[in-house]
Amino acid sequence: MSKRFAIGIDLGGTNLRVALVTGNGDVIKKVKEPISHDILESIFRLTEPLFSMDVEGIGLGVAGVIDRRNGKVLISPNLPAVEGINLVKEIRERFGVPVYLENDANCAALGEKWIGTGKEYPDFVLFTLGTGIGGGIIYANKLLNIAAEIGHMTIHADGEKCYCGNTGCLESYASARAILSRVVSALERGRESMLKEFHEGGFYKLGAEDIYRMALEGDNLARETLKDAGRHLGIGIASIINLVSPEAVILTGGLIGAWDIYIEEAIKEASRRAFKELFDRVKIIPSLLKDNAGVVGSVGLVFQKFA
Amino acid sequence: MSKRFAIGIDLGGTNLRVALVTGNGDVIKKVKEPISHDILESIFRLTEPLFSMDVEGIGLGVAGVIDRRNGKVLISPNLPAVEGINLVKEIRERFGVPVYLENDANCAALGEKWIGTGKEYPDFVLFTLGTGIGGGIIYANKLLNIAAEIGHMTIHADGEKCYCGNTGCLESYASARAILSRVVSALERGRESMLKEFHEGGFYKLGAEDIYRMALEGDNLARETLKDAGRHLGIGIASIINLVSPEAVILTGGLIGAWDIYIEEAIKEASRRAFKELFDRVKIIPSLLKDNAGVVGSVGLVFQKFA
Repeated sequence: MSKRFAIGIDLGGTNLRVALVTGNGDVIKKVKEPISHDILESIFRLTEPLFSMDVEGIGLGVAGVIDRRNGKVLISPNLPAVEGINLVKEIRERFGVPVYLENDANCAALGEKWIGTGKEYPDFVLFTLGTGIGGGIIYANKLLNIAAEIGHMTIHADGEKCYCGNTGCLESYASARAILSRVVSALERGRESMLKEFHEGGFYKLGAEDIYRMALEGDNLARETLKDAGRHLGIGIASIINLVSPEAVILTGGLIGAWDIYIEEAIKEASRRAFKELFDRVKIIPSLLKDNAGVVGSVGLVFQKFA
Repeated sequence: MSKRFAIGIDLGGTNLRVALVTGNGDVIKKVKEPISHDILESIFRLTEPLFSMDVEGIGLGVAGVIDRRNGKVLISPNLPAVEGINLVKEIRERFGVPVYLENDANCAALGEKWIGTGKEYPDFVLFTLGTGIGGGIIYANKLLNIAAEIGHMTIHADGEKCYCGNTGCLESYASARAILSRVVSALERGRESMLKEFHEGGFYKLGAEDIYRMALEGDNLARETLKDAGRHLGIGIASIINLVSPEAVILTGGLIGAWDIYIEEAIKEASRRAFKELFDRVKIIPSLLKDNAGVVGSVGLVFQKFA
């Protein structure tokens, strides 16, 4: 059988990823850039060089709530620019192949189910831990077609205002953006930390990796902030365990790079909070496909791996 | 076709309900009493007079996390006495018919799906609002076999200790027990209220109905407490809408008697918190079967209405 190809596009909170992927889920080529103002132009520009007559379709994962019937993004707190665009129609007209739209975290869950960590688990919940926090739920080997906006569960009833309009969302306490914003406020208030010297004092340019690196070097502010975010993630994981009682919680996204501080703290907190009988049977484990989970999963949609 | 019969048993947080139900879901006879120490004796005593050779099986709904494979109650924060008993085995041996075990809120969801408010909704979430708060999720016309412990989502990360061991659970702020405990503390602290005169000053005997009645008569403490509990329920409903994006949220249990204060407040709060696009399409509505939802749903299990 000749090889089959599709293109996967992952439009997360910060980065746009486009990849050429085979019918077996192998990523042949991948490009990535920070999301720009003109999202459609970026998508076209990155997709063009990967496209060929061999490409059977395009899968598209977008951070936000998806209207599957009409192929539209209903709302995207971290990516409001896409709300007005009919992405499916625009991309289909440009490339002349079928386009499949799904939530980005749902795509990542599908990718992990297809050829990743989730392969052996009929029931799991995937968390994407990046700029924002997203989720996807696999139940009886299939994706639940639900919003799964795990990042927008309230964990602090009277807490901080979230981008989505709610107050006290998990995402406002445990995401990369939350971590950065806490570090920056502390530095602005004059807190001593090695992070102050980063980027020649331009600490607004700090990234989550910088914070993790300094935490490893013993910086108190970096360490405390990561641990506190991890504790909050654990609260969200515990709620999800009590609700969904999955066999596995699979974690993906940039923040899992800080596993030994951030995730370990989350696991500790979840173990204190979830029903013991449910916590004892759940495995909390990293994604195998990592950054590729989204593009692979969206290509799975093209090849109808989950029909 | 001759009529078919089964017995439904609903073991909630406070009351034991036993009913003789037909294959169409009609409740022929029902008995109810507060749950006693010797749960098994109570179940036998109430079931005996309803049992006959025509009864094909017994459905059993219990507040707690169920191990479906082994027919056991893994954990029940509101009913710890059942954790040690193999209810399925005991009841089967006593009556000699098949016994089906499910979580009580899941049973109520099944009942509503079968012949209640949920009949026309392929996807809905049911909340049981009583002593504790439970949940059941119907997805694509079937019950999700998950814990669905909605009452044990954390909504106040650093909040009050819950019976389950966690802190800040929805149930600790929005259940009947939470309402009563808040009223009693206020009265103990000397707060003026008509509730003080109830039961000849024995305000430990107050029930949620007393509080609702006095709220209607304009008592400030009663009104504030119900509204605050409703606000917290709304926080939980919003999280569930953002997670599950259901077509309907169906509410059942004693507290829906206070709809115009408690539930109205919950709906207002949920509308402020949930993603607008998801809130706009969800219907928040009362259960049709009310107190019978649990026994009817458990009988549905006997007749395999949901296979």
